[in-house]
Amino acid sequence: MEIVFASRHESNPLEWVRALQAALPDHRVRLWDDEEPSGRADAAVVWAPPAGLFDREPGLKYLFNLGAGVDALLHMPGLSDRITLVRMEDGGMAVQMAEYVLHYLIRESRDLGRYAAQQAQARWQPLADIDRSAWTVGVMGAGVMGARVAQACAALEYPVAVWSRSGRPVAGTESFGRDGLADFLARTRVLVNVLPLTGDTRGILCRSLFQQLRPDAYLINIARGDHLVAEDLLACLDEGRLRGAALDAFSQEPLPPDHPFWHDARIQVTPHVAGASLMDLTVRQIAGKIDAVAQGQPITGIVDRARQY
Amino acid sequence: MEIVFASRHESNPLEWVRALQAALPDHRVRLWDDEEPSGRADAAVVWAPPAGLFDREPGLKYLFNLGAGVDALLHMPGLSDRITLVRMEDGGMAVQMAEYVLHYLIRESRDLGRYAAQQAQARWQPLADIDRSAWTVGVMGAGVMGARVAQACAALEYPVAVWSRSGRPVAGTESFGRDGLADFLARTRVLVNVLPLTGDTRGILCRSLFQQLRPDAYLINIARGDHLVAEDLLACLDEGRLRGAALDAFSQEPLPPDHPFWHDARIQVTPHVAGASLMDLTVRQIAGKIDAVAQGQPITGIVDRARQY
Repeated sequence: MEIVFASRHESNPLEWVRALQAALPDHRVRLWDDEEPSGRADAAVVWAPPAGLFDREPGLKYLFNLGAGVDALLHMPGLSDRITLVRMEDGGMAVQMAEYVLHYLIRESRDLGRYAAQQAQARWQPLADIDRSAWTVGVMGAGVMGARVAQACAALEYPVAVWSRSGRPVAGTESFGRDGLADFLARTRVLVNVLPLTGDTRGILCRSLFQQLRPDAYLINIARGDHLVAEDLLACLDEGRLRGAALDAFSQEPLPPDHPFWHDARIQVTPHVAGASLMDLTVRQIAGKIDAVAQGQPITGIVDRARQY
Repeated sequence: MEIVFASRHESNPLEWVRALQAALPDHRVRLWDDEEPSGRADAAVVWAPPAGLFDREPGLKYLFNLGAGVDALLHMPGLSDRITLVRMEDGGMAVQMAEYVLHYLIRESRDLGRYAAQQAQARWQPLADIDRSAWTVGVMGAGVMGARVAQACAALEYPVAVWSRSGRPVAGTESFGRDGLADFLARTRVLVNVLPLTGDTRGILCRSLFQQLRPDAYLINIARGDHLVAEDLLACLDEGRLRGAALDAFSQEPLPPDHPFWHDARIQVTPHVAGASLMDLTVRQIAGKIDAVAQGQPITGIVDRARQY
């Protein structure tokens, strides 16, 4: 097969081409060239691919996305139904997301942010011991990422609930399906969003959802910026409905310098780093799948266009 | 049996007496009274007990410590060899220590402290992806606490080594015994101290030890302040030998307001809260042991005076 690597955001695309080629000695891997596309590519490995890709490579049968979220890809003009979309499954992301969530969960449940503030005043003041039953965690999303996040929190003895469209059970947690959202929210203090962005989930993190959480709730959004209604978050913080939020994804990235999230002490901002596809794991996974399809074998991670993930 | 509760540091000792009495309906639980000790106590439940306890209660056979560390108790004048010392085993402390360690480990390995600093400048700058092999964790101590800390780090795919006097193996980690200290240190980037304080371990966290760690190492001390030579830590930070430290225990507590630890941005100070004995779990454990000894059954957690823990 001929494989083209096409990303507008990768700082060192040649490194990816070399790594993919080394992992796929039986195939040909090229870097996308805006001026001179080969026109013969069977598959593309992409992250935010250039607009001309589909026109100029009409023979594409497979599109391997370097990330788990394919929401932007699905909206690209020219994406034919003939093309099989494949998303990353884990690739080192799940454990990263789990530890990102743990860091901010523990910061809240153990008052470590408040101790940091006390340190600035040289103030020695032990606060109340943790009551773990008051720190219920609710994870939205039960895929590889959501399950890993949920189990990491459960391993630290937090009561954990998981909500997903399918209601898929996650060991050691309480699982809720589509119709169980209200029950799920009513028991959740720390809400973690790991959902795919679809027509159904856009704007799901809004005032009416926040109002159903336990008092003094905390939000951790490691999925997409468009899941969140920014003004609703700010209003609920001001009203004391929420205590704070850790946000890794934003509707506009980079987050504009004058955005209120930057300057709000109740919000922790990170620049879309909660879960990165690590090159070696990503290359191994995608190369394995390319070898499989070349041999006519089935692969996992194929995007369901109707479901949008 | 008659049991006396004696603590100089407990803000609400009557709450403990009530909880212990409720858990021990067949025994009598009293609060220590400096003026009117009963003189008939068979056992004492203590945390920093008053100096007069041993003189005024000559019939004491058991001393149940509310914490895991018995170093201060062992040095109290008047402590007879006849008294069986029992320390807390876990009591909710192990999971607290594990999450405390995870919080600061992840802060370093995932640059979350640097992202917080970038947020203060409204600066969007993703840093390098994590290379987990560069973040080896070394845990000193292989008891209930050390094992739980080590396994929590291993569950997040950090390479973990454990060092202890006995070399007791901890599943999923590399174990080192007394003679393996140099090998243990040479592979450690994040050093976590959970050792008991004994004649052998006092001052163990010193310059010569720090110099054997991997470059750019980070220290997490959740055991005792006297494990650490404070001036060696500050010197090694200044020399760039260490990148930082999270410290929860200090030779003098409260840490004096003019202590340099408070005002060093490389040091995270918390007021001895990494692992607190939670009242309900503690009461349940101690009550279970008192019932057992009253019935002539064996118990765990008995302190070996020669070993000092």
